[in-house]
Amino acid sequence: MVAVDLGGTRMKCGLVAADGAVLHRETRPTPRADARDGGRAVLDALLETVVELSQKATAEGHRVRAIGVVVPGVIDAEHGTVGAENLEWTGTPVLAELKAAVGDGEPIVLAHDVRAGGYAELRHGALAGTTNSMFLPLGTGIAAAMIVDGSLVSGDGYAGELGHSKFIHGDAAELCACGQWGCLETVASAAALARRYAARTGRTVDGAREVMELLAAGDPDAAQVWHDALAALVDALVLYTTLVAPTRIAIGGGLVGAGETLLQPLREGVHARLTFQREPEIVAAVLGEEAGMLGAAQMAWDRAEEDQ
Amino acid sequence: MVAVDLGGTRMKCGLVAADGAVLHRETRPTPRADARDGGRAVLDALLETVVELSQKATAEGHRVRAIGVVVPGVIDAEHGTVGAENLEWTGTPVLAELKAAVGDGEPIVLAHDVRAGGYAELRHGALAGTTNSMFLPLGTGIAAAMIVDGSLVSGDGYAGELGHSKFIHGDAAELCACGQWGCLETVASAAALARRYAARTGRTVDGAREVMELLAAGDPDAAQVWHDALAALVDALVLYTTLVAPTRIAIGGGLVGAGETLLQPLREGVHARLTFQREPEIVAAVLGEEAGMLGAAQMAWDRAEEDQ
Repeated sequence: MVAVDLGGTRMKCGLVAADGAVLHRETRPTPRADARDGGRAVLDALLETVVELSQKATAEGHRVRAIGVVVPGVIDAEHGTVGAENLEWTGTPVLAELKAAVGDGEPIVLAHDVRAGGYAELRHGALAGTTNSMFLPLGTGIAAAMIVDGSLVSGDGYAGELGHSKFIHGDAAELCACGQWGCLETVASAAALARRYAARTGRTVDGAREVMELLAAGDPDAAQVWHDALAALVDALVLYTTLVAPTRIAIGGGLVGAGETLLQPLREGVHARLTFQREPEIVAAVLGEEAGMLGAAQMAWDRAEEDQ
Repeated sequence: MVAVDLGGTRMKCGLVAADGAVLHRETRPTPRADARDGGRAVLDALLETVVELSQKATAEGHRVRAIGVVVPGVIDAEHGTVGAENLEWTGTPVLAELKAAVGDGEPIVLAHDVRAGGYAELRHGALAGTTNSMFLPLGTGIAAAMIVDGSLVSGDGYAGELGHSKFIHGDAAELCACGQWGCLETVASAAALARRYAARTGRTVDGAREVMELLAAGDPDAAQVWHDALAALVDALVLYTTLVAPTRIAIGGGLVGAGETLLQPLREGVHARLTFQREPEIVAAVLGEEAGMLGAAQMAWDRAEEDQ
């Protein structure tokens, strides 16, 4: 199974067996997207990667049963087109281009990166065995993969934008890249931690990792930035729990590297706020950076089995 | 089909044909629930009603194919038990009692009143033809029926508590009956409008209806209470839209009697706030007070067909 997780800066690629075993893995750079050609260079790199991985699989004696590609954007499932700001794609016919590149043989699955990651956690990871749960990666951005009544929610490609829901109010609300004010992402993403620390102190830091190091060293500005992130995350988890009633929430993305420094205050904060609701377990996701690629592979295997 | 919508003060009952036609309808009082006997009188009245309606149906030459009962509480689908504060029920074995009362013949469906109402709107009402939508009745309380990827969401009976999600912040947040602060229900339910008007003015009013009359007459306190309700509702609809991506939202319950006075500001408020999200239509629900009973009947017919 050929699987590619196309990110804004790199593509995580693999050949994955039916049981989830990764037979081959590699990372390739994503070309810089250019608005002038509608992100054509990115698309070409994706097509080339899929073709080369297919050839490699065949050369090594595997039969490519299906191809899974996940992208950081909104997928129009009906038309196979993708809108992805980071890639400069707008209604880009990715599915048709993939089919043209690899031929009509294998089924091709095109999915959202976070939803694919959630699906991988559901099938083989921290959400295994759940029917109502959420995968919430805290990375450069924040989006949720929602599992509801046993199924991964799509909402025609639009669902799960918890990162662009408002959890900061009044004067504290900052303008988000999405055009709204006070989004969770403006305080609780890895990028927001670094940006807000720099804004408070005038000192540039090397990402959320350095903010976490400063936090551990007792830096009061790092503590405040971290406190703001935790408070907004607790609000978001309580709201999700009240509305959708998950039994388990798996936090992923770069920030979960903070481990119990992140998870324990989230558990305590959510526990203190719930009254009548069912309390979810809050755990770390387990598949790490490969979640999207593994989800792409799993979805592709599922499709291959359906098509049999 | 025997259908009963058991409310805190009355039971809306009916005999309903497969096409949704109501062959018979009646309303009975719900006995006052007493905590000392665990709401036994309510349960007895429900059982008596179901038995009498079944007998009536048979006497009139109809075959009772299934029985649908909807209740205002959390249903444990696995055990058939119900927790309902208003009825003083805690883990009450409603399904087993119903089966004992009517015999093992027909399948019995036990469902949540708001979800059943949403299902009726989905099958025969304002949400017909949608696959991602929401039914939001604004009555004494507020809860949502969520339709996601073509299915009515259950969340093991816990999902949809948008009315107990926090949309009022800081000093403005009031304590909700559920024990949380700042719930949507504390400002935007029919009960809240009357209570908040009385609290501002010291004048008792005859429910939300009188507040709406005062609003129409230019009363500034009524205008402020109404403004607070609309602002919180817009926040709630924007959040739901961002997270779950409905194409249509049907507002129901007593407050929708206000018509465009309610709907137009909601549409304008939501439209002004959305940036990247898919904008939902915001419409009035169409089935009114019978939605729960009709949903109970529809769910019962569905079950009867499955069991064939």
